[in-house]
Amino acid sequence: MKGKVVLVGAGPGDPGLITVKGLMELRRADVVVYDRLVARELLEEAPKGAELVYAGKEPGRHHMTQEEINELLLDRALKGLHVVRLKGGDPLVFGRGEEECLYLASRGVECEVIPGVPSYIYASSRALAPLGSRLGSHSYTVTTGVLAGGRPNPALPELLKASDTLVLLMAAGRASEVLGTASRMLGPGAPGVVVYRGAMPGEKVYHGTVEELARLHARGEYGNPSVIILGGAARVAGRMQAALHGTR
Amino acid sequence: MKGKVVLVGAGPGDPGLITVKGLMELRRADVVVYDRLVARELLEEAPKGAELVYAGKEPGRHHMTQEEINELLLDRALKGLHVVRLKGGDPLVFGRGEEECLYLASRGVECEVIPGVPSYIYASSRALAPLGSRLGSHSYTVTTGVLAGGRPNPALPELLKASDTLVLLMAAGRASEVLGTASRMLGPGAPGVVVYRGAMPGEKVYHGTVEELARLHARGEYGNPSVIILGGAARVAGRMQAALHGTR
Repeated sequence: MKGKVVLVGAGPGDPGLITVKGLMELRRADVVVYDRLVARELLEEAPKGAELVYAGKEPGRHHMTQEEINELLLDRALKGLHVVRLKGGDPLVFGRGEEECLYLASRGVECEVIPGVPSYIYASSRALAPLGSRLGSHSYTVTTGVLAGGRPNPALPELLKASDTLVLLMAAGRASEVLGTASRMLGPGAPGVVVYRGAMPGEKVYHGTVEELARLHARGEYGNPSVIILGGAARVAGRMQAALHGTR
Repeated sequence: MKGKVVLVGAGPGDPGLITVKGLMELRRADVVVYDRLVARELLEEAPKGAELVYAGKEPGRHHMTQEEINELLLDRALKGLHVVRLKGGDPLVFGRGEEECLYLASRGVECEVIPGVPSYIYASSRALAPLGSRLGSHSYTVTTGVLAGGRPNPALPELLKASDTLVLLMAAGRASEVLGTASRMLGPGAPGVVVYRGAMPGEKVYHGTVEELARLHARGEYGNPSVIILGGAARVAGRMQAALHGTR
């Protein structure tokens, strides 16, 4: 092995939700390559003089291509620099960290991944929607609303059927289709939760039925980035709301 | 609301994997009620004189019952103390945090949850097994090998079929059954990963086929706490191993 790149999960938007270990890596980085949803406060933790590279990655519009990012990481690692690749959430949960690691590994550069709190784990904690719970969520499935290339995820009906809880990431762009499928499979009154801009300025949390959440989306109340939680965990969240406020 | 309890996810065993925010809460706690898999180093972060209560919870053997824990949290919160409930991983991923929150909410005490890195997210990062990936894991399902009461999880075949990747927590006690089911559903040569004692002393990581992992278990190479990852994410982890070492 000729060098190393450390992939660090920054967690959701709140800079306090990075791990202590991830923060330590950042504080001794020579180079930080960061994505769009990473809190800017975290970049201030890098040493003065560290090279900070914005890698972009808006949906559909990329500041740097994946190939350019790969090449940059490789170049800096081969120069013996301490390279931190900072990604929102966890690097291996739909973060393409594995593509970077595969590229580097095949060129003799090692990857270490320091995990982060995924956006949906934050959403669950914020809405008090327990993803794994004896009270009605023995299993939960995490997937995206759309697949690479923008086509709708064809596995949704089967996943809704097999799992107690379905967690959808990057689903708001296709929310009407996704919630329509959920309404057909689980009924329009099935419980759901949406956390929009989780742990970021402008955060909003909605508890409601699938039908209500579809209406809120149609009114433009939320878009991306949103996490949608449907089924068992959302039902427990509803019980929690009732216990807290004496009503649903 | 008459008081508040802060549930903090300690993350997996490594004390560096708690979030910065979780650590801050711990540093101003009057009372810390902690579970078995929490790193002891974290307790040293609590202020001198803070009340530290071990709540236990080994599988099948409890130091305190859930009712006793609930009552303790309520009592201290009603006294106006800053109560931190520290749990391994994330409090709402099979951590029963929601049961404590429901109990407290129905008595007018609020819960705040600070999320943690779940054990399986750590396992994924350690084994470089990307749970959400364009390379072959468009969906992943998280569940336990056994349900409350110790009976095997009957949903496994359906979940193995619906999801690209299946993540099993607390499955090692039933590993032969679980891996037998996986072998029937996916074939004995299907790829898997086991992370035993993730981020704790004595950690072991195994990459292999379902058949090989069953053999390792029969030889006593791993038990609980283990995370088992089967299917798509494990296949990518295998590619990563091959790229790193030039062989599988």
